[in-house]
Amino acid sequence: MILLERDILEKNNSFARANRASFAKRGVRALNLVSSPGSGKTTLLVKTIERLAGSRPVAVIEGDQETALDAERIRATGVPAVQINTGKGCHLDAHMVGHAAEDLPLAQGGLLLIENVGNLVCPASFDLGEAHKVVVLSVTEGEDKPLKYPDMFRAASLMLLNKCDLLPYVEFNVETAIANARRVNPHLEAIQVSATRGTGMDAWINWIG
Amino acid sequence: MILLERDILEKNNSFARANRASFAKRGVRALNLVSSPGSGKTTLLVKTIERLAGSRPVAVIEGDQETALDAERIRATGVPAVQINTGKGCHLDAHMVGHAAEDLPLAQGGLLLIENVGNLVCPASFDLGEAHKVVVLSVTEGEDKPLKYPDMFRAASLMLLNKCDLLPYVEFNVETAIANARRVNPHLEAIQVSATRGTGMDAWINWIG
Repeated sequence: MILLERDILEKNNSFARANRASFAKRGVRALNLVSSPGSGKTTLLVKTIERLAGSRPVAVIEGDQETALDAERIRATGVPAVQINTGKGCHLDAHMVGHAAEDLPLAQGGLLLIENVGNLVCPASFDLGEAHKVVVLSVTEGEDKPLKYPDMFRAASLMLLNKCDLLPYVEFNVETAIANARRVNPHLEAIQVSATRGTGMDAWINWIG
Repeated sequence: MILLERDILEKNNSFARANRASFAKRGVRALNLVSSPGSGKTTLLVKTIERLAGSRPVAVIEGDQETALDAERIRATGVPAVQINTGKGCHLDAHMVGHAAEDLPLAQGGLLLIENVGNLVCPASFDLGEAHKVVVLSVTEGEDKPLKYPDMFRAASLMLLNKCDLLPYVEFNVETAIANARRVNPHLEAIQVSATRGTGMDAWINWIG
């Protein structure tokens, strides 16, 4: 089992290196958004695209076990999107992303936003060739998630604390959540956002760079 | 890959059959709670145990990648609990559960509540020997989750729509969520609950039987 897992990850890493080289060649910045199901990644992407409003080329790769719902939501903003359905699969891998990227018009200097399958475990192990993993944690999920799912918070460069508009209605201590996340990853940056209300979106857009 | 996956699942199923036989022999009812991370499973279990208040013996198996936080929360109610840490693993399997059950005092006629790793994908494929899978969907996660993660909603007998106290603050249509779930599993029962407020807990306790 361990040998097989290593083989799968090595194959994935080799596809990831190819993706990274291809993105670098085209000056494309790729971000891999990871989270639990229902943390609000798609709404965040829609609002992010609206904020960027044509200031730079954007393309999106959407991952889900089934349905093309998310890619349709993205295309409604006018931005090209490819939906990957993983079927039984619990994460995107670099091979899938490489093929999807071939189908997308990615202009020089563009931004490629990859929304992974909602899963705080498996996508942590799979490099897609992205510049950074961005983990989205919604405040309805509890402050303990970074401790319970440490691999993902270790793999990420930025944590977006989403749905901050719901803070008055849930038991969630922002400082504890950030402290827990930094126990597993001292270098993790954190930004509080509410994608639906627009809170914190400037900081997030600045972070994208 | 497919052969290996089948082998893993067959091994798991054989352990699951053994668990099921052992539970039947002792008159133990086992429920496998599955959901996204942060849907409120542990709070639901704590409140469920408080409601049952010694009317029947209860024991709990907790699954998480890391930490013993959940088992500690359960033990604070006075009920025995075993924590399984899956490390890199994304789900409980029947072998782990069989061993954990050996360590638990499970009286005749007791109830074994198994809280799986928070993950809407992988735990769907793994029979633990439970009587039923119960999928918990919190209303903050969106109505589309049954369509995007159909395997889990197909595998479950009951959907608990949790955090209903947050309905006034989120965009979530209960009827659409139930209709989506029944598109993938026409036999799925559904109960709306708020574990923190106590709403719907009587119906859930009745369902447990």
